[in-house]
Amino acid sequence: MRAEILAVGSELLDPLRQETNGSYITGKLLEIGIEVGARITVADDAALLESAFRNALGRAEVVIATGGLGPTADDLTREAAAAALGRRLLRDPGLLEDLKARFARFKRVMAPVNEQQADLIEGGVSLPNPRGSAPGQRAEQDGRLVFLLPGPPGEMAPMFEEHVLPLLRQHAGSTVVRKRILRLAGVGESDIEQVAAPVYKTFANPRTTILGGASEVELQLVATGAGEAAALELIEALNAALRAVLPGRIYSEDGRALHEVVAELLLERKLTLALAESCTGGLLAARLTEVAGASAFLERGCVTYSNRSKVDLLGVDTALIETHGAVSEEVARAMAEGVRRRAGTDVGLSITGVAGPGGATPDKPVGLVFVGLSGAAGDRVRRLQLFGDRDRIRRQSCTIALEMLRRGVLGLSAS
Amino acid sequence: MRAEILAVGSELLDPLRQETNGSYITGKLLEIGIEVGARITVADDAALLESAFRNALGRAEVVIATGGLGPTADDLTREAAAAALGRRLLRDPGLLEDLKARFARFKRVMAPVNEQQADLIEGGVSLPNPRGSAPGQRAEQDGRLVFLLPGPPGEMAPMFEEHVLPLLRQHAGSTVVRKRILRLAGVGESDIEQVAAPVYKTFANPRTTILGGASEVELQLVATGAGEAAALELIEALNAALRAVLPGRIYSEDGRALHEVVAELLLERKLTLALAESCTGGLLAARLTEVAGASAFLERGCVTYSNRSKVDLLGVDTALIETHGAVSEEVARAMAEGVRRRAGTDVGLSITGVAGPGGATPDKPVGLVFVGLSGAAGDRVRRLQLFGDRDRIRRQSCTIALEMLRRGVLGLSAS
Repeated sequence: MRAEILAVGSELLDPLRQETNGSYITGKLLEIGIEVGARITVADDAALLESAFRNALGRAEVVIATGGLGPTADDLTREAAAAALGRRLLRDPGLLEDLKARFARFKRVMAPVNEQQADLIEGGVSLPNPRGSAPGQRAEQDGRLVFLLPGPPGEMAPMFEEHVLPLLRQHAGSTVVRKRILRLAGVGESDIEQVAAPVYKTFANPRTTILGGASEVELQLVATGAGEAAALELIEALNAALRAVLPGRIYSEDGRALHEVVAELLLERKLTLALAESCTGGLLAARLTEVAGASAFLERGCVTYSNRSKVDLLGVDTALIETHGAVSEEVARAMAEGVRRRAGTDVGLSITGVAGPGGATPDKPVGLVFVGLSGAAGDRVRRLQLFGDRDRIRRQSCTIALEMLRRGVLGLSAS
Repeated sequence: MRAEILAVGSELLDPLRQETNGSYITGKLLEIGIEVGARITVADDAALLESAFRNALGRAEVVIATGGLGPTADDLTREAAAAALGRRLLRDPGLLEDLKARFARFKRVMAPVNEQQADLIEGGVSLPNPRGSAPGQRAEQDGRLVFLLPGPPGEMAPMFEEHVLPLLRQHAGSTVVRKRILRLAGVGESDIEQVAAPVYKTFANPRTTILGGASEVELQLVATGAGEAAALELIEALNAALRAVLPGRIYSEDGRALHEVVAELLLERKLTLALAESCTGGLLAARLTEVAGASAFLERGCVTYSNRSKVDLLGVDTALIETHGAVSEEVARAMAEGVRRRAGTDVGLSITGVAGPGGATPDKPVGLVFVGLSGAAGDRVRRLQLFGDRDRIRRQSCTIALEMLRRGVLGLSAS
């Protein structure tokens, strides 16, 4: 069963405005196994709105619209939905009485424009709105369900819970949809795709989506099952198959970010860490200290932007910098070793590179980055050639450094 | 002229996900007088996507799609757009060569799945993407324009600016909408509103929106005029009036972020800086080093998470920490002075506080933060009591520290 959601209102197309009803409804529908195929935000324009309804009805079994049920000339949702269904809009005497009574209760005179709020799609059912003047409505055609709900979230959400969800739950039956996110780092999307696709393509359920970011890949597994246990079992079957073809690669199967996984690993194993960053300028330390309680493993971080600070804070030999340059395997190694020794920690992790756009030389292009790891088991340095802008290179460097640390602690190969 | 925007990707329908490309594009189109009639977020489903393209093309003169141009089986935007236009998809030999060359340049083997990124809609024009592997494209049919842009905002936005906006500007008329963003830091939204509202409410054009964030306030002035010059004149009139009632408060009138303004100020005055951070854990250094060329003013940053590192790296007296605690005015001052002296810089800036959720004591609650500034003109320390979660407290601390640095350099009062 598939749904589409229409958010009606020109104001929702303001660049600064966030449309929130759609996310709310999507989340609720997912829980009962109904997937949302499309979310559409439409301006207050009769022809556009009718077309949007018609198209959504052509594709989905459930169409839920929010907004455009008010009393003004801009409020066109009723007319548009009726037109798309090929039905008339009828003024409902009972609803009209309710409206009048509501105004009388608040000792206000009802303007004639308000009367259109009593218009009901022919054959439709009104949904009461105790929190506002705009009643909702629902209609059915060829087994397809259309719901019109008010726009204000405080009116929409209770109406959705009371009058939409129970009905849809009956239609959806016992089907539930569950999602799991697998995360991998330090490898390209297409490399993972090569290995993972032959596996996940043999599974029709769960469906798999692969997403690539800056040196991060996410595999989203979405299973539909008759009940919670069945859905989770389907997910676990594919997850196990992916684990087998990507040994040691999946760092998280529960939504945790890489820095959280690494922090927990260090805490668990009671390992202490010191950082020495050049081109990432504190970004690695900032990511790790997002985790509450990071002081239990992070002893210090040094943002050694100048050569002098590399010598002062890390004890890197000036001659080493002069011979090989600050961006070199040798200096990355000396930074990781130096910060580890000075801080007296179990592990030292360093990053030095050219984040750009300036600072490149013929043999040290933008994106050349060295990551150094120093620990009880010895030292490792990885040479990277990253691409993208300054921000992307810095973020990728941090991700790869964290993955290198994770692999080092777990005794896996460096990359 | 009217546009519709398609955001492609099942992941964008995740209830927790915010789709941001649509807002960005809507804002840019508004500036050149093109209204957005609908914004549609569509799942990775070939039939659905083709229908969405077909419907949008039936209603709008301009259709802009973002996402779904990657190399995987999920990436269906090219196929769907071609099908909706009734055209074939042709593999472009030139694009294929570019792709191969790109992979070769980074010494990586191109997986065969990547080849589909060289597919071009028959009669279409490719839009180069120097920031990623997915080129964009545009096609025209019966005077209607279709643009396919990559999904990552960092690739989409530059491509939009360079290859979409100039073309659309030619098609659009002469009414222009201009926006100016005034930024202020270290003061509350309601304090600014008290002073600014009586001024901006006397102006019907520009319209003003006030937005408050973590210790940052933004005033957005939006003017509509017959041409660029007229719109800018209207904006400048209100801007001047706001400058007069908020002397020294507006740090940026051109969209620059606080860390960029501070970086330029330091570069301009040839001042060098060293940082000592505790609870912000490198976030302040990371923000300042987002600016390319930060090495010209930032000598070092010390993330002194442990007491030992405060003593080792900054020369803070152990007795001072024992007497007053690491989160104290005295230690903040000693950190700023210490890092300045050790690094030999003009200015030292320090942050120490309780970011939470743990680490609080009866007299040192979560959100208690001290910011220290040490320079030729003497030392300043500000005591802050911030509210919110760990992330918000850390971000606010950095913002207030940067504003304190800006005010110090400009000879303004500390707060």
